[in-house]
Amino acid sequence: MSLTVVRTTLADCEQICRKALTKVGLPATAAGIVAENITSAERDGCASHGMFRLPGYCESLRNGKINAEAVPVSSFPAPGCVVVDAGGGLSLPARNVGLPLLVERARSQGVATLVISRAFHFAALWPDVEALAAKHGLVAFAFLNSKAFVAHAPGGVKPLYGTNPFAFSCPRLSSDGGLSEEPLVFDQASAAMARGDMQLAARSGTPLPPGAALDANGEPTVDAAAGLQGAQLPFGGHKGSSIALMVELLAASLGGDAFAFEALASDSGDGGPTKHGELILAIDPGRCGGQGREAFLARVETLMTHIEAEALEAGASGRSLRLPSQRRFQNRKRTPVEGIEISEDLYQRCLNLAGDDP
Amino acid sequence: MSLTVVRTTLADCEQICRKALTKVGLPATAAGIVAENITSAERDGCASHGMFRLPGYCESLRNGKINAEAVPVSSFPAPGCVVVDAGGGLSLPARNVGLPLLVERARSQGVATLVISRAFHFAALWPDVEALAAKHGLVAFAFLNSKAFVAHAPGGVKPLYGTNPFAFSCPRLSSDGGLSEEPLVFDQASAAMARGDMQLAARSGTPLPPGAALDANGEPTVDAAAGLQGAQLPFGGHKGSSIALMVELLAASLGGDAFAFEALASDSGDGGPTKHGELILAIDPGRCGGQGREAFLARVETLMTHIEAEALEAGASGRSLRLPSQRRFQNRKRTPVEGIEISEDLYQRCLNLAGDDP
Repeated sequence: MSLTVVRTTLADCEQICRKALTKVGLPATAAGIVAENITSAERDGCASHGMFRLPGYCESLRNGKINAEAVPVSSFPAPGCVVVDAGGGLSLPARNVGLPLLVERARSQGVATLVISRAFHFAALWPDVEALAAKHGLVAFAFLNSKAFVAHAPGGVKPLYGTNPFAFSCPRLSSDGGLSEEPLVFDQASAAMARGDMQLAARSGTPLPPGAALDANGEPTVDAAAGLQGAQLPFGGHKGSSIALMVELLAASLGGDAFAFEALASDSGDGGPTKHGELILAIDPGRCGGQGREAFLARVETLMTHIEAEALEAGASGRSLRLPSQRRFQNRKRTPVEGIEISEDLYQRCLNLAGDDP
Repeated sequence: MSLTVVRTTLADCEQICRKALTKVGLPATAAGIVAENITSAERDGCASHGMFRLPGYCESLRNGKINAEAVPVSSFPAPGCVVVDAGGGLSLPARNVGLPLLVERARSQGVATLVISRAFHFAALWPDVEALAAKHGLVAFAFLNSKAFVAHAPGGVKPLYGTNPFAFSCPRLSSDGGLSEEPLVFDQASAAMARGDMQLAARSGTPLPPGAALDANGEPTVDAAAGLQGAQLPFGGHKGSSIALMVELLAASLGGDAFAFEALASDSGDGGPTKHGELILAIDPGRCGGQGREAFLARVETLMTHIEAEALEAGASGRSLRLPSQRRFQNRKRTPVEGIEISEDLYQRCLNLAGDDP
């Protein structure tokens, strides 16, 4: 792994992604959606879901595992339920078809679900819920599984669950009385550690924190290479394991999609995503409890300002207390001005995929 | 604390609770609902939500903090949303008014919410979701806050969040092709440790596991008495802290109810519950993804039998791998036959509350 980095702009990142994805047959609109998603991860300082993902996307599109030409098809099996069948294509274009329908149903019904089925998801999860809060004032959840990397805890020794992130967002009030562009958002894996971080630790020989992995014999290990051969562990012991199981059920079984252990068994090993389901759930918080949006947002601010006051106090005592997503919002202000850093190896690889000379 | 125990029957437990609750003015129907709930906790081996709760209920009903005469009032602010205003009474009777309405809406809309507002909840949370899966075939969540016991992590040193349990249930197929009476259910606090267990540890001088509490100076402690004066910690570090925050928002802000820090500030210290909100959310899993109930249940069994096979394998290797709620289901078969054990002190106290001679 090269430690040399290239400094570039968000616009350059987006253009490279767009070109590379178009080159392997993804139609322009879908390529734009994926390029925008990768770029927003780089913008927010989340390198593991940024350009790092481009080679996997391109390979799976090139070899036909992902259907580049898939057209998402939506249906309404119930008044509060939207299904988008991605048809073996990418999840993000299917999500973009489904989200406006979800918003409309959440508004009219008070609560609604969006099941995205037969889709390849390889992106960070927070973009799937952030705009629901920031633009539409909805409380939202997203649940996604992956192929199996994580053992059941306690007692499991084999990969059973995906890293199984779940994301949550809640709208906040802006100073002008509208919706804040910085809602409360978190997006966290049920695994103790991100798969990508474990891969990076293995390459650099950095030890893992205790409790993150088991080796192939089922023994606890801090050796990242051994952990990659064995199984990751969920965060927080049996409680994290229950959450991993819940995410597995919500993401996969509602739409008849693959569980992580099935996705692992059928994985082609091409470095790209595997085919999954996803559940996004949205609540109209003003209607749900009957108190109206303003009263709801005022209540949320009561809690948030209480926490922010404690964060200030903590800062004055040399402690760091942060609300989830604060680091992302800070990066988001910085990177459009300062640009982003990409490892030279990866940048060169992405340039090659885009067909550009360095 | 006496270590002497009394062995008694579930019927005796239920009768004592019913008498004691009626004696402090709770109408017969509500007393029956609460007595049944306490008894089901004893039946399932969950002593911390069993007769242990009776003195607190009785005191708060006696001193008028809980309105014994409250009549729950339901409304439908949106097609998918039910609200039950408990009117400052107990949560369980309000829940019993709301659940049939929630079931009806989840069936007709595909997904529905039930907000229970202005309610005193002092019970285990799994009964609020278990029957939704076992009797009605719904996937369900429940979110409940409490008064503040738990610090934000990392960086927090003061009680901010409640112990904030969330419960989840998913229906399973029985061997006769119907719904299993033993669905997948979990009910877990966002705190690393139950408050009741910390109180018991303080009384017996047992050290806490590391990572469960901070002392009043904000330093990590394994001294339970010091932890009770300081703050509990969430399970799983910052991820558990995010979940505690999510539960706080879902349980309290949708219905305009008290956050944990507000409930702490206004608590009378009578040993009973504080006034809160609760959110229960139910999905009709056959309709939500459009595949029908049978196909959904078959998918769930595919995952469950895979996990159960791994559990057998684990058992053969001397490891214990269990699905959530298995211990509860085992206790449930045992206690109706063998009876239950209650500490003599507590049993005597409950008998006195019921006005029975020992």
